[in-house]
Amino acid sequence: MNFCPACGKSVSSKIPDGDHLPRFVCDACATIHYENPRVIAGCIPDWEGKLLLCRRAIEPRRGFWTVPAGFMENGEAVQDAAAREAQEEALADVEIGSLVAMVNVIRAHQVHIIFRARLKNTDFGVGPESLEVGLFDERDIPWPEIAFLSVEFALRRYFDDRHEKRQLAHFRDIDWKDGELVLRDR
Amino acid sequence: MNFCPACGKSVSSKIPDGDHLPRFVCDACATIHYENPRVIAGCIPDWEGKLLLCRRAIEPRRGFWTVPAGFMENGEAVQDAAAREAQEEALADVEIGSLVAMVNVIRAHQVHIIFRARLKNTDFGVGPESLEVGLFDERDIPWPEIAFLSVEFALRRYFDDRHEKRQLAHFRDIDWKDGELVLRDR
Repeated sequence: MNFCPACGKSVSSKIPDGDHLPRFVCDACATIHYENPRVIAGCIPDWEGKLLLCRRAIEPRRGFWTVPAGFMENGEAVQDAAAREAQEEALADVEIGSLVAMVNVIRAHQVHIIFRARLKNTDFGVGPESLEVGLFDERDIPWPEIAFLSVEFALRRYFDDRHEKRQLAHFRDIDWKDGELVLRDR
Repeated sequence: MNFCPACGKSVSSKIPDGDHLPRFVCDACATIHYENPRVIAGCIPDWEGKLLLCRRAIEPRRGFWTVPAGFMENGEAVQDAAAREAQEEALADVEIGSLVAMVNVIRAHQVHIIFRARLKNTDFGVGPESLEVGLFDERDIPWPEIAFLSVEFALRRYFDDRHEKRQLAHFRDIDWKDGELVLRDR
C-alpha cells in the first residue's frame, strides 16, 4: 500500500496510539488501513468412495493436483464458497458436509477451511482454472503431485477418519522460520 | 475505496474479464483490488465450570457482555488470535481447546471462529476495551445483555455440549434479508 484508498494521499507505516502492530496510516486524513488474513474455502467431493481432484491450470503450482478451493468472497458463507469453488473449478455439484481441516498458513496470511462434501452426480468437467479433473481411489491419489501442504493434510486426515469410521475436525499451523518448514498440530 | 492503494489514481467499480463480481479496479494502472471477509477469533474461557465474560467498553454494543474476541491479524493462527484477545480484553491467560462455533455473519463480511478454552488462573482483570470482567455460572449468564448473536449461539451450544459431556463444533449463518434476521444452522 502506497496511497490512501480513502483520500488518495500517501500513507506511512506506523504503530497507531493504543495499538501494537505497524499499520498503513494516511499522512493526510489519518485513516488507519488494517490488513487481515483471508479465508481459503475448499471441499473434498466424494463419489462412492472416490475423491474429485483438479489439476491446476494457474499459478501458483500450475500442473499440480488439488481439491476445489479458493478465496471466500464477501456476502457468502465459508461452506457456500467451498461449493462455489467446486462448481467453478470442476463444474461439480456438491453438498457440503462436516469440517475436516482448518489450517493456518501463517506466512501467506491465509486460513484454509476444508469440508467433506458429497458429489451429487458425475456430470463434472474441466473449469477454466483446471487442466484436468478426475475421480481418484485412495490408492491412486498422486501424493507427490498434490499442490499444497494444507490439501495434503486434509486428504490424509480424511482417509484416516474414513478408515476409523469417524468424521473429526483437524487443525494445523503451517509456517516457515529461517527458511525451514514448521508444522504444528493443534 | 476511492483511490488505488498502489498508484493513488481513481478507481471504478466494475466486473473484470473472467470474473463474476464487481471489484474496485484502478482507472490508471488496472490493478484489481479484492475485498474479502475477515475472521473474528474468540474463545470461551472456563474456570471450574464458570465462564469468563467481558462487558464491552467500546462500540459496537458498548455496555453489553461478550466472550473475548476480535479481528485475527496477519502472521498469527486463529487459535493464537483468540488467546491474544483474552489477554487484551480480560488480561486472561488461556489455553485454547476445541472449536465450538463457526458462524458466518454474512452482511458484516465476517466469519466468527470461537474455541473452548481453559482459564489457567484467576489473575484476570479489566483490559482497556472492557468495562468489567467476571466469571459466570451458567444460571447467571446475562442472556439479554449478550452483545452478539454469534456469541449467544456459541455459549448456548457450549452449555448443551457440557450437559451431554461432548465437545462438538457448531455451524450457523447469520444474515439479514429485507430487514429480517435469517438464521441457518449447518
